[in-house]
Amino acid sequence: MRNDYYQRSYDLHRKSAGKICVNLKVEVNNSDDLSLVYTPGVARPCQAIHENPQEAWNLTIKGNTVAVITDGSAVLGLGNIGPLAAMPVMEGKSALFKKFANIDAFPICLDTQDTEELIKTIRHLAPTFGGINLEDIAAPRCFEIERRLQDLGIPVFHDDQHGTAIAVLAAMINASRLSSKAMQDLKVVICGAGAAGTAIARLLAGIDYPDGTFPAVKDIILCDSKGAVSDSRKDLSDEKRELLEFTNLNHAQGSLQDVLKGADVFIGVSKGNLLNQDDIRSMADSPWIFAMANPTPEIMPEDAYDAGAGIVATGRSDLPNQINNALVFPGIFRGALDAGATCITPKMKLAAAQALADSVVDLSRDKIIPHVLDPHVCAVVAKAVVDSVEPVSPECLVN
Amino acid sequence: MRNDYYQRSYDLHRKSAGKICVNLKVEVNNSDDLSLVYTPGVARPCQAIHENPQEAWNLTIKGNTVAVITDGSAVLGLGNIGPLAAMPVMEGKSALFKKFANIDAFPICLDTQDTEELIKTIRHLAPTFGGINLEDIAAPRCFEIERRLQDLGIPVFHDDQHGTAIAVLAAMINASRLSSKAMQDLKVVICGAGAAGTAIARLLAGIDYPDGTFPAVKDIILCDSKGAVSDSRKDLSDEKRELLEFTNLNHAQGSLQDVLKGADVFIGVSKGNLLNQDDIRSMADSPWIFAMANPTPEIMPEDAYDAGAGIVATGRSDLPNQINNALVFPGIFRGALDAGATCITPKMKLAAAQALADSVVDLSRDKIIPHVLDPHVCAVVAKAVVDSVEPVSPECLVN
Repeated sequence: MRNDYYQRSYDLHRKSAGKICVNLKVEVNNSDDLSLVYTPGVARPCQAIHENPQEAWNLTIKGNTVAVITDGSAVLGLGNIGPLAAMPVMEGKSALFKKFANIDAFPICLDTQDTEELIKTIRHLAPTFGGINLEDIAAPRCFEIERRLQDLGIPVFHDDQHGTAIAVLAAMINASRLSSKAMQDLKVVICGAGAAGTAIARLLAGIDYPDGTFPAVKDIILCDSKGAVSDSRKDLSDEKRELLEFTNLNHAQGSLQDVLKGADVFIGVSKGNLLNQDDIRSMADSPWIFAMANPTPEIMPEDAYDAGAGIVATGRSDLPNQINNALVFPGIFRGALDAGATCITPKMKLAAAQALADSVVDLSRDKIIPHVLDPHVCAVVAKAVVDSVEPVSPECLVN
Repeated sequence: MRNDYYQRSYDLHRKSAGKICVNLKVEVNNSDDLSLVYTPGVARPCQAIHENPQEAWNLTIKGNTVAVITDGSAVLGLGNIGPLAAMPVMEGKSALFKKFANIDAFPICLDTQDTEELIKTIRHLAPTFGGINLEDIAAPRCFEIERRLQDLGIPVFHDDQHGTAIAVLAAMINASRLSSKAMQDLKVVICGAGAAGTAIARLLAGIDYPDGTFPAVKDIILCDSKGAVSDSRKDLSDEKRELLEFTNLNHAQGSLQDVLKGADVFIGVSKGNLLNQDDIRSMADSPWIFAMANPTPEIMPEDAYDAGAGIVATGRSDLPNQINNALVFPGIFRGALDAGATCITPKMKLAAAQALADSVVDLSRDKIIPHVLDPHVCAVVAKAVVDSVEPVSPECLVN
């Protein structure tokens, strides 16, 4: 089946020579049209924007246009394949922006992997766009790039971090509703301490949003390829060391298997086939298993359930409970553009997760999150984002 | 009438919120579609490009996609209004690319006017695109940017220079056919020594293409705001001094009016209302007047004809003989993309001008150049460009 997807995808891409195109929204059929769309008439909207830059949102495509920007350094599970080979993913993302959110998104694959060059280039690019979706940029570079671009005046959002984190939080909220386990009492183990794992930990720990607005998870342990990220390790990068300010406060050490013992939740965002049934049995009763590695989960749902899992979710579209950021980024950007937001604040992320969770009306073990193709999801998330925009967003500058 | 264009153009831009949009070329209606367009299937085209970068032309939008790039430093007659206010022009250009050449073009308005930053940023942007159309970038910066990007591997073409020059050359070829004046015997005065004037002079003088392929004009004088560009002047920039290697070889000095005496051709690419009827009368018999300033020509056609002009052309769409680069850039890029050209060579420019001239079948004083909306022009120019592509284009590196 997997090989079948691959060959058919190749054939589809070859047949259509890519997945998106640029079309006209206006008529150009005669000299009069030409005089309005181009010279001399076009001078007037140009002047209007020159006099009042805010007019760009009314007179150009800016207000509905998002750049999908990558440096090709962390593409899918393929790794650092470079910007040219990343094009099919960025086009695919642009296609989903249009399909789900009616946003005009355009792929921008940058031929540099230098942090300073990426930041400068994205600053230079900003005038055309109403928002920037960062995509498939490797950690830790992705953290600095996103952080330093928060003052750009338009939302800059690294979807691999926050899209994933918001979808996970929504699934957690609904899993909590289905079980007797309250969010703040959970022991959560996250396998993967890169872009997604870090963002999931930050969002679950609630460190970016004001106290009391959300029952944050208190016991979170991140694991990387060397085991638990703990203060006893001497090999940690600055970024991983920072995580210890709000994770692994009990100083657990050892392998993933070691720290998984007694845990209520496993969240996997690294590699497939990492867990076996004994690992599941070593966890707390009826644990939640979010085995999101793609295309092969850390453990298959039937194996996890057989070993006593309470709720299982994956990243796969052919299994129930697909936790996918396609549930999130269309609504996040639709809402941000509609509201004229200048950044995506923690409050907006939290509201998006809550709205996503609340949108599931027929909640069950196999339906803790909406289906990716559910046509209502984007509008629900967008409304939550719009409603949580503050007139002035001081977080933009300090996020 | 002008004010009418302006207000209607503003209203049109406001109503449609810009002029272009991004659409899907593939279906995304179900999970299977999603698996082909996005994960997991999209991994296969990514891998194919990673293994063979040439596959990007088959599997992505690159092969039919052009960036319309500006820094907003020389927008229409409005000057340095910046990248945001330049958006309506770049969108308009993108719309014309689609309408005339079925090319997917996208506006990229860069928020820097530093030459080195512009060059670096355009290099970083290249993977997404099959060609780069530079637009409304001020001289002399535009010359260096274009020259230094000729090794990028995709065509980089400053339309304000070469699009205009090619259209002027086509008009000259047909004017020569209508009169007894041979190209190599003409005395030509070009008013405007910026991007367009410089490129027109280079193309007419034939200095970029091999000897003998074209009857080049031998007597060309450029004028700037201070009069004739001559070796007696102490205030010339390096770029203008270089022009003296092939222009004003007779060391003419003085004002535009001074050097215009006895000239066969006036080519105006600066400001309106510069010439009066006495100026026309001071020229050779039946001179050609290409009064291309926009929206007000250097002299109106009826005044020029009354004073004895043989052939008059302007840049206006509401007058006969509109010399406009919209006749050129769609075909240039269509041909370059179709041929997989890595740059636009002098040979391709010359072929485009010749094809454009030859495409006028009902040649007359009022029809020395095709109408901008003539639906055949793009294909004619594109074919000439394809036919003149050489398997290896050494000019790309030295242009």
